[in-house]
Amino acid sequence: MNPLIQHIQKFISLSESEADVVLSYFEAQAFKKKQLLLEEGQIAYKQYFITKGIVRFYINNSKGVEQTMQFGIENWWITDYLSFQYQTPTYFHIQAVENIEVLSIDRKSFDALLERIPKLEKYFRLVIQKSFGASQVRIRYLFTMSAEERFRQMNEMFPEFVQRVPQYMIASYLDFSAEFMSKIRAGKV
Amino acid sequence: MNPLIQHIQKFISLSESEADVVLSYFEAQAFKKKQLLLEEGQIAYKQYFITKGIVRFYINNSKGVEQTMQFGIENWWITDYLSFQYQTPTYFHIQAVENIEVLSIDRKSFDALLERIPKLEKYFRLVIQKSFGASQVRIRYLFTMSAEERFRQMNEMFPEFVQRVPQYMIASYLDFSAEFMSKIRAGKV
Repeated sequence: MNPLIQHIQKFISLSESEADVVLSYFEAQAFKKKQLLLEEGQIAYKQYFITKGIVRFYINNSKGVEQTMQFGIENWWITDYLSFQYQTPTYFHIQAVENIEVLSIDRKSFDALLERIPKLEKYFRLVIQKSFGASQVRIRYLFTMSAEERFRQMNEMFPEFVQRVPQYMIASYLDFSAEFMSKIRAGKV
Repeated sequence: MNPLIQHIQKFISLSESEADVVLSYFEAQAFKKKQLLLEEGQIAYKQYFITKGIVRFYINNSKGVEQTMQFGIENWWITDYLSFQYQTPTYFHIQAVENIEVLSIDRKSFDALLERIPKLEKYFRLVIQKSFGASQVRIRYLFTMSAEERFRQMNEMFPEFVQRVPQYMIASYLDFSAEFMSKIRAGKV
């Protein structure tokens, strides 16, 4: 079964014909490693459901350094929701961390799909609720755990993820100091 | 008109009888300044729509200091969404910054209401999308602006808010250093 339909079915029930309707609104796209799905200054015309690979959501910080704010993996939705909702320019970048495959939907199709199958509103409400909750958890970790604890926890919870993502991106996501990075590289953590 | 109904009408249309149904699911509550609406270790049984006053969402950081992560003002929804959704204990606190009035709804009533008036799903999806977007904007400010720029911007965008909220809460929300706080107190900013 299509991974998007499988994911939707975890939250609401869809008939076979509804599932076909849903998929008819999406476009399968592939992006190469390092390619940008969204770039600062652009409008987020689309939102993406990741079917294969990892993406990251980052910003250029005040020192001109890329600050990773969020990752997206298989079965995760990603976009800049304010830019997508209001069709205003984004301040963020979304980049493929590896070669990836996504199902994309533009704003107009998204509205039309929700109009056609209103019960999908519940699915998207729950998905965004989860994303919002996850971002609150991340901030909680930043404020309550040491860099070492954050790194250990990520290794335990998502070992495969830590293998697949370049270290400097994880360091920026977990807000490691240069000092702590040297310790990791020297195998002292 | 009731402020909640007014707010919902900005996103979707409700008939008069639907508006009455909506309100019948809510309870009007008042909390005194400094009172907690939610406390670490509790389950977020309710979500709150603020009709009067300001609340804050905070966490005890690794140094045992309260770190303000979010504020909520009139016409804003607040809860720990993961705790509310999965009925698991929260790590956060929600506190009344001044004497406040809210409309509250518990999880069971919330589900029942959405079952009864499914088009409210759209309203709640859009509301959470906005909250999530606002939290991404806040993180962007933290990474791309100096403390001085953040303070100036908040003063310009929400002058009344800066008047109403104690300085130490704003300092924690905008991540000011003790040094920068002294400059503000000395009127040097």
